[in-house]
Amino acid sequence: MFFVKLREAVQRNHSFLCVGLDPDPSLLPEKDVLAFNRAIIEATADLACAYKPNLAFYEALGPAGLEVLQRTVEAVPEGVPTIADAKRGDIGNTAAAYARALFDVYGFDAATVNPYLGGDALGPFLERADKGVFVLCRTSNPGGADLQDRLVVADGGSRPLYEVVAELAQEKWNARGNVGLVVGATYPQELGRVRQLCPRLTFLLPGVGAQGADVAAAVGNALDEQGGGFIISSSRQILYASSGRDYAQAARRAAQALRDEINRQREAILAARSGRGYQPEADPPLAEA
Amino acid sequence: MFFVKLREAVQRNHSFLCVGLDPDPSLLPEKDVLAFNRAIIEATADLACAYKPNLAFYEALGPAGLEVLQRTVEAVPEGVPTIADAKRGDIGNTAAAYARALFDVYGFDAATVNPYLGGDALGPFLERADKGVFVLCRTSNPGGADLQDRLVVADGGSRPLYEVVAELAQEKWNARGNVGLVVGATYPQELGRVRQLCPRLTFLLPGVGAQGADVAAAVGNALDEQGGGFIISSSRQILYASSGRDYAQAARRAAQALRDEINRQREAILAARSGRGYQPEADPPLAEA
Repeated sequence: MFFVKLREAVQRNHSFLCVGLDPDPSLLPEKDVLAFNRAIIEATADLACAYKPNLAFYEALGPAGLEVLQRTVEAVPEGVPTIADAKRGDIGNTAAAYARALFDVYGFDAATVNPYLGGDALGPFLERADKGVFVLCRTSNPGGADLQDRLVVADGGSRPLYEVVAELAQEKWNARGNVGLVVGATYPQELGRVRQLCPRLTFLLPGVGAQGADVAAAVGNALDEQGGGFIISSSRQILYASSGRDYAQAARRAAQALRDEINRQREAILAARSGRGYQPEADPPLAEA
Repeated sequence: MFFVKLREAVQRNHSFLCVGLDPDPSLLPEKDVLAFNRAIIEATADLACAYKPNLAFYEALGPAGLEVLQRTVEAVPEGVPTIADAKRGDIGNTAAAYARALFDVYGFDAATVNPYLGGDALGPFLERADKGVFVLCRTSNPGGADLQDRLVVADGGSRPLYEVVAELAQEKWNARGNVGLVVGATYPQELGRVRQLCPRLTFLLPGVGAQGADVAAAVGNALDEQGGGFIISSSRQILYASSGRDYAQAARRAAQALRDEINRQREAILAARSGRGYQPEADPPLAEA
């Protein structure tokens, strides 16, 4: 089960950091994309709680890029889960083909999906109880407001569309306990609101690093009552920490720095809560650290 | 420019039929997917105004499936445009990678995109003035209602989200005249409403065939004042018209029957309009037929 595997990786590596594997040819310090990915994975495997390749970068390399994707997933150590950042959404037998591709052909443990086509379109993903399904909720880009911030008529009042998606995810789509949400760390207020609505869902938070989100605000708004419930994704900040031959060592240093900063922020918040009489319901992932 | 190429193909083949190339291994009458696609294309190339491979079915075949996709696009005759049914939506440099993949690596003339991430996410597609961009509006599945039919607060009242998308597409995203909409033929009333809002956008209509939409209602609601403005997509009804060795001939017969039915419905509506004093603004595509 994906969320069990994720929690174990969080605990083993004392890490809430998900490393995005997004090889952009214009930034790569190494021509061989697979060798680059393998070097990044090797340099960060004890620092990451998950790896998240975005399929766009592999598709842009042509059919050979999908070979690279397959070998990249294989290169991730057994205990660290993989998330296909695919943002797929399609209907019926087509959605089933996407789920088959991501989960069975490429062997991902989880995938990101787009909710615009509704619950029946997500069905072939949701029914895979062993896999994780991260539904886009409030994305990290300003244009996300075009639809996601629209006020929807609800309960005699109105609320933004992303809140509707959060509630659908929690109340309708999570029947198998395998659903999480993608919420941009660039919108900490909205993130806090989604946490209020969905106290127990796990959030995948993009936006830290190149997009400029604040780690403290992200952790502060995403942390659940059990002291977890989120992972922070970073790609460019780690992958391209150096454009030289030392890129893997530089990636390791960048990953370690970000992992440690997330942990520091988290511990500060837990300490403050504990000062207010907070007792975590379960062992927090870093209790033994 | 995609919409010029599409109009020329409509006129040349007297056809508003877009053939979906969605090879489902459980239904294929032929083991070699590329040979199957080539046979279907050869059998229907004078009957189709476009071909639309859905990427899910190629991704489900692994990296080799993307080779098949590339060869399939190459197999489409020069004058018939290709639409990547990809429903992509992602942000910034990732959206750029998807646009590069679909338009430059695989050479598609157009693509379908998902609007949930907003206008900036669509940017890398929209800025390609030579390419067509079909934005999902009201999709053909019942679950589309989960988000798309939600009433959004607007102009002192409220309106469904799909109408908001239709207006964004027409008024903001179509600055280069390369935007169309995907509207399910399964929802003729919503289709008619979108036509009212967007009198000049071209609609891609899925839902006829296996999904059971009525051709007359689809054409009646989608037809624009110039006597065109839509294409009807069909996949399974054509591809799997026979499970035997005669599948290509059967596909040709099915494509011809559907093309002719669409044309009959269209001509009946134009005749009725003309009885009411209707004069098309431009030569309707079938004027010379």
